[in-house]
Amino acid sequence: MTEFRSVVAATGEPQGDAFAVHGPADVAEACAKADAAFDVYRATDRETRAAFLERIADEIMAIGDPLIEAYIAESGLPRGRGEGERGRTCGQLKMFADYVRKGLWQQLRIDPALPDRAPLPRPDLRLRMIPVGPVAVFGASNFPLAFSTAGGDTASALAAGCPVVVKGHPAHPITGALVAQAISKAVADAGLPEGVFQHLVGPSNELGSALVQDPRIMAVGFTGSRGGGLALAKLAAARDVPIPVYAEMSSINPVLLLPEALKARGEALGTAYIGSLTMGAGQFCTNPGLILAIEGEGLDAFVTAAEAGVTQAQPQTMLTTGIAAAYAKGVEALEGNPGVDLVGKGADGSTTTGGAIVFRTTAAKFLADKAMGHEVFGASSILVVCQDEAEMVELLKGLEGQLTATLHMDAADEAIAARVLPVLERKVGRILANGWPTGVEVSHAMVHGGPFPSTSDPRTTSVGSMAIDRYLRPVSYQNLSDGVLPPELRDGAKGDGAPRLIDGVLTL
Amino acid sequence: MTEFRSVVAATGEPQGDAFAVHGPADVAEACAKADAAFDVYRATDRETRAAFLERIADEIMAIGDPLIEAYIAESGLPRGRGEGERGRTCGQLKMFADYVRKGLWQQLRIDPALPDRAPLPRPDLRLRMIPVGPVAVFGASNFPLAFSTAGGDTASALAAGCPVVVKGHPAHPITGALVAQAISKAVADAGLPEGVFQHLVGPSNELGSALVQDPRIMAVGFTGSRGGGLALAKLAAARDVPIPVYAEMSSINPVLLLPEALKARGEALGTAYIGSLTMGAGQFCTNPGLILAIEGEGLDAFVTAAEAGVTQAQPQTMLTTGIAAAYAKGVEALEGNPGVDLVGKGADGSTTTGGAIVFRTTAAKFLADKAMGHEVFGASSILVVCQDEAEMVELLKGLEGQLTATLHMDAADEAIAARVLPVLERKVGRILANGWPTGVEVSHAMVHGGPFPSTSDPRTTSVGSMAIDRYLRPVSYQNLSDGVLPPELRDGAKGDGAPRLIDGVLTL
Repeated sequence: MTEFRSVVAATGEPQGDAFAVHGPADVAEACAKADAAFDVYRATDRETRAAFLERIADEIMAIGDPLIEAYIAESGLPRGRGEGERGRTCGQLKMFADYVRKGLWQQLRIDPALPDRAPLPRPDLRLRMIPVGPVAVFGASNFPLAFSTAGGDTASALAAGCPVVVKGHPAHPITGALVAQAISKAVADAGLPEGVFQHLVGPSNELGSALVQDPRIMAVGFTGSRGGGLALAKLAAARDVPIPVYAEMSSINPVLLLPEALKARGEALGTAYIGSLTMGAGQFCTNPGLILAIEGEGLDAFVTAAEAGVTQAQPQTMLTTGIAAAYAKGVEALEGNPGVDLVGKGADGSTTTGGAIVFRTTAAKFLADKAMGHEVFGASSILVVCQDEAEMVELLKGLEGQLTATLHMDAADEAIAARVLPVLERKVGRILANGWPTGVEVSHAMVHGGPFPSTSDPRTTSVGSMAIDRYLRPVSYQNLSDGVLPPELRDGAKGDGAPRLIDGVLTL
Repeated sequence: MTEFRSVVAATGEPQGDAFAVHGPADVAEACAKADAAFDVYRATDRETRAAFLERIADEIMAIGDPLIEAYIAESGLPRGRGEGERGRTCGQLKMFADYVRKGLWQQLRIDPALPDRAPLPRPDLRLRMIPVGPVAVFGASNFPLAFSTAGGDTASALAAGCPVVVKGHPAHPITGALVAQAISKAVADAGLPEGVFQHLVGPSNELGSALVQDPRIMAVGFTGSRGGGLALAKLAAARDVPIPVYAEMSSINPVLLLPEALKARGEALGTAYIGSLTMGAGQFCTNPGLILAIEGEGLDAFVTAAEAGVTQAQPQTMLTTGIAAAYAKGVEALEGNPGVDLVGKGADGSTTTGGAIVFRTTAAKFLADKAMGHEVFGASSILVVCQDEAEMVELLKGLEGQLTATLHMDAADEAIAARVLPVLERKVGRILANGWPTGVEVSHAMVHGGPFPSTSDPRTTSVGSMAIDRYLRPVSYQNLSDGVLPPELRDGAKGDGAPRLIDGVLTL
């Protein structure tokens, strides 16, 4: 295949001009350019890099409504979501600009020489974080703006000082191309080498494989399926020089209805649950796919409200016909599973849409059948009723790693919440109370990550300012003169606003 | 095999009582205990954990001279080195105690709720680092104290709040057992569960494999050979839940003699070089195995002094007969390599000792034969003469990842040093000027790490306070009440001495 076309999500029909399919030769050329741009780009000072990130946000806004129209057509998601996601994307770039300016990410450390120390003098040691090198970013289908071409992976890698080669998601090539042009314009206007940002597209896995295997790529950011993430991780580990793959893969995001909260507001929880489940056709990494409750007061009200809500749900356009088909298959398997009962089901989906559905089972059955715990990407969810707290804890301990866990709780539930918290901490990256996991704030204290298989590396987050750490590594400089030391490590640089750990004492 | 015995390094003869060989059943039992101890141990407050680390140091000192005697017999290293290494080990534990108290490692972050933000309110988000879980530590042969049972890996994992299961190195079982008893005494005296620290021994690879594959182990620290490190990394990646292996493996530590420094003090550099090369029979990860010089004034004086020095070198006892045999084999291969010339050679080694040797070649020949760049663990080194700066840079770009690079330079060399620095930063974890890489300071700004294959993960260090980060991962808490939040994230905890990033602003 040498060409491919954009597809309208709502109809499954192609639209617009054909895109040339990029192949291994394009990958090699892009990676060579990225590598050549690396030393120039990483040498930019904090202000230059921050201003560049802000310029990207401005250029994305300058595209105007054509970007939103492309987004709607290619994703099937509504205008409000598209505008919100654009705001999130630009806000994310500006947050990283601010974070780059403040310099905490450099982790500057200075251990001054102790020439008179006995038995041996201590040398002068200075440490900074440097960017790892060119980064490959795989655009995600479910956030065509906020986690794709200029999404969280790209923003954090550029903030770290790494050139980026994006493998655009083939489900939104027009949206991706518009954003890529905006970034490349910002690169040119900032006087940076064009290798700082490049965008490759194509519907085959071959393109992504070539990118991960290129020896100049030093890290990979990915959001997508478990199969896709694991395949990339395997390729990366088999390289002559293995590299990290930060893959955000799958999660069913357990929601715990603690007894007092369930008793107090079972009906309201049931209604809110369906609202969270069906948002964006359920196509969120943090979709509430698993509800845990202990048999008791309020459960019937919850179930009744959930049933009422899901029964009224209308099918929604899914991101691609492939995702709609996979969703239908996943739902069909659960419908045919004798271990689960149907709570309620919305209007049926089609080849381009997905309907919502809620199942119910017991903890004993869930524990006995691992298939019930696999993610069905879309608005499918399962309520698991536990006999008591001990059974709920046993079930939690048996879960795979997750992005989030949610506690619906009242003050009188604090004791049980405190008991399950240590269990949850070992399973997830974010624990929330009295909300729904589908909102992921872009801020400093956010963790969008978690134990395997929710991600390939639980030491990191892919959302929030801490995401920059994925693309940095420490280098120590011993007894280097000012003429050779990196500028931020010279004595004269103190007072530049970046915090420093000086002889173990944090100094602002 | 069910038993094995300690071996006197100098004679290759067994000594003392037999040790029982631990097997898979012991691994399973130890990992179950470590897992059971994890929640108790990680809940200790900073002061308790710091005092525990200091108590370990005190208990190690309390062993007294029997520890040094075991060290000397088992390693063949001299008393001064043993006492120095003990001091380093205890100093390392105390440094981590201090670092734990200060709390920077928790990376506390608080984004307060913004209930009035439009279009959506911001929730309250709080982040801390938590320990990853039980850690497996593989003792290193070449630092029987500072990088073995209570070495840098153990100290940093315990500091992070992780229980540790050590696979003691079979080359020093008596030294290891004495240290393990000291740690276990500190565990008991601190009232902690015995699963916080456990020590398994045995000469087979089976023990280590079982340890890395145990599902309760969540990270691995290793210092040793490239083959060993890669084998463990492969096992860890193939688990149902893959885990990180922090393996510090091999490095030849290029030393650059820049032109003005070489001209000014070629002879002194040649003499100092042999001093660094032969220290500890060359059995340092940071041994200077590769010297790079540009043809020019001072080179002859350097070579003459190096030849004189190495010719006078006496063979030294190596850590094990296996290491001595591998060293002899590596040297033999270089001696038979027509691309290298002999600069000089000390007195021949034996089955338990290794002699020092220095080779010489040209950059063109070195570039054409990758085998010349492989580590020969011991006091073997190669001088590569480059025609000009461009050839030296080309050679550096072709090198594998290294722990260190050294610049011998005068003020007039600053321009060339500044040009090679970006090349070195992409190849190594520590860059030093006018010293020798064999001294590795235990401090905050140290990086003992580097690009593959010097380590398996260049985002980390295995020496210095930053080593604690290897065993931590972030968790975010959203809208949790004070009754459920971890203590250090409650509003009332502010002022406890730990820095916090509050709404993006670092606050002491």
